[in-house]
Amino acid sequence: MSSSIEVARTADEARRAAISPAQMDVEVRLIENVLRSFEQCTEPRTKQLMQSLVRHLHAFIREVRLTEAEWERSIEFLTAVGHITDDRRQEFILLSDVLGASMQTINVNNEAVGNATEATVFGPFFVDDAPLIANGGDIAGAGVGQPCWVEGSVKDVEGNAIPNARIEVWEADEDGFYDVQYTDDRVSGRAHLFSDEAGSYNFWGLTPTPYPIPHDGPVGKMLEATGRSPMRASHLHFMVTAPGFRTLVTHIFVRGDELIKSDTVFGVKDSLVKDFDHQLPGTPVPDGRELEDSDWSRVRFDIVLAPEVA
Amino acid sequence: MSSSIEVARTADEARRAAISPAQMDVEVRLIENVLRSFEQCTEPRTKQLMQSLVRHLHAFIREVRLTEAEWERSIEFLTAVGHITDDRRQEFILLSDVLGASMQTINVNNEAVGNATEATVFGPFFVDDAPLIANGGDIAGAGVGQPCWVEGSVKDVEGNAIPNARIEVWEADEDGFYDVQYTDDRVSGRAHLFSDEAGSYNFWGLTPTPYPIPHDGPVGKMLEATGRSPMRASHLHFMVTAPGFRTLVTHIFVRGDELIKSDTVFGVKDSLVKDFDHQLPGTPVPDGRELEDSDWSRVRFDIVLAPEVA
Ligand SMILES: [Fe+2]
Ligand SMILES: [Fe+2]
Repeated sequence: MSSSIEVARTADEARRAAISPAQMDVEVRLIENVLRSFEQCTEPRTKQLMQSLVRHLHAFIREVRLTEAEWERSIEFLTAVGHITDDRRQEFILLSDVLGASMQTINVNNEAVGNATEATVFGPFFVDDAPLIANGGDIAGAGVGQPCWVEGSVKDVEGNAIPNARIEVWEADEDGFYDVQYTDDRVSGRAHLFSDEAGSYNFWGLTPTPYPIPHDGPVGKMLEATGRSPMRASHLHFMVTAPGFRTLVTHIFVRGDELIKSDTVFGVKDSLVKDFDHQLPGTPVPDGRELEDSDWSRVRFDIVLAPEVA
Repeated sequence: MSSSIEVARTADEARRAAISPAQMDVEVRLIENVLRSFEQCTEPRTKQLMQSLVRHLHAFIREVRLTEAEWERSIEFLTAVGHITDDRRQEFILLSDVLGASMQTINVNNEAVGNATEATVFGPFFVDDAPLIANGGDIAGAGVGQPCWVEGSVKDVEGNAIPNARIEVWEADEDGFYDVQYTDDRVSGRAHLFSDEAGSYNFWGLTPTPYPIPHDGPVGKMLEATGRSPMRASHLHFMVTAPGFRTLVTHIFVRGDELIKSDTVFGVKDSLVKDFDHQLPGTPVPDGRELEDSDWSRVRFDIVLAPEVA
């Protein structure tokens, strides 16, 4: 039997599951048979993925001694996740998100490079053709909330400015909704801009506020049944691209937000938590914009892009 | 941190994945965070299931270093499985079947008791209110195929006869279809009967023939992409119930069927492979039935029921 279809079968494993050696044999032989069924696969990566999946899936079933009723409920749960999913609602992504699987995939594919900015989850609310704004422009559109001046730079890991980097930004309004969650076809809370010749950028957005992931479906029921909140920590999305650099998909989070510790999709990284400095009404704004009696905030986010992997 | 949220973090693990200690920390801390999010769950079994699922899911992602493109394809695959699933088609069960997860769940819940008959997968084609037949009756109905005389006994593990055990039997016709796969509401190839005072039973069915699981959906595509066949080994389904005994869900398989080694849902167990003895036309039948010029077969299946677990 090839080493790729070896299965752990230690005395310790048997002891923990409190099963007889004969029962152990039945369970292990099944795993070996399933692994062997994928041995004919001619695409090595597919074969590796399927065999690894089989090993971990069976390890789960055996470890918890999954009952037949629990198996049935699992099938029903997945069926419900499938049936609520459509062009506007992706419940499988939500499921992946709340199990940390989306974030772990991001981690695995974005190993730290020097002081490069860390990545986090993409989320379901990005839209491809957000409007172009100039530096100093406003992304809020019809979105309601406290104005927030966002500024920073885009550099490489050696500290060289990256001019003309494309910066996509998107965020929810103060009611916790992205534009695409409204039915009036509005475009608001999203735009793209480019870093200038010095690698700098700035724009007006909204101070981020918390919002729940859609929780009226099976994933929401699972969160409720397990005592978990559907809330995401307040955040502002960024995606930054420049030729020769690894695409950065990330957020910045609001220092002091109590949801930082319990973000339901596990997107928070310490390095991405920023000071959004509250400004009283009348405090002079960076660009002379007229804010009337509104208070506002400002934040600095200096972005460092990792080199593209060849 | 409680022992329930310990995460393996061995030097060997890091070496195999060829990741830096800092990257290891990022990945392990995420797992710890996800596990911790379920610590508030007040239902201990649910908490155990979710935390074990998280550990194995993350172990899979990290072991294969799942790419973002592969994650997307996984989401698309699950979405397709969800969308083809309806009241008549359960693609998630098919998926569980071809990964051996259904069979492993059966194994985990049906540990061998003495010489009790082994269990196997239930399958999607059982129907609740199949007709009652007397011993010696015929289950074939409109189903076409070679007649098969099935006989045997129902006993406990000490060898005592179990009279009046309820025996449900169901099978495909020689074209490989169950009655419920036809659109004409036929009832054929299924019935229930009871063991007599001596614990014996017998009936006429059809000699089992191979059939493919439904393979025109995403699970069929996966089987094709991995070089696997959708064929099930020829079999006849049994479900046997009697008060005080563990319900037995099983099949018998046809010795000599070349699919025995590659049953696509991994249902075959050596003890369930039986001799279906071929009989030439004109060979006297056990009950004097008139078979005209047809050849036929006969098989003996002695059933042993395990005691019910209190
Ligand atoms: Fe978001
Ligand atoms: Fe079947």
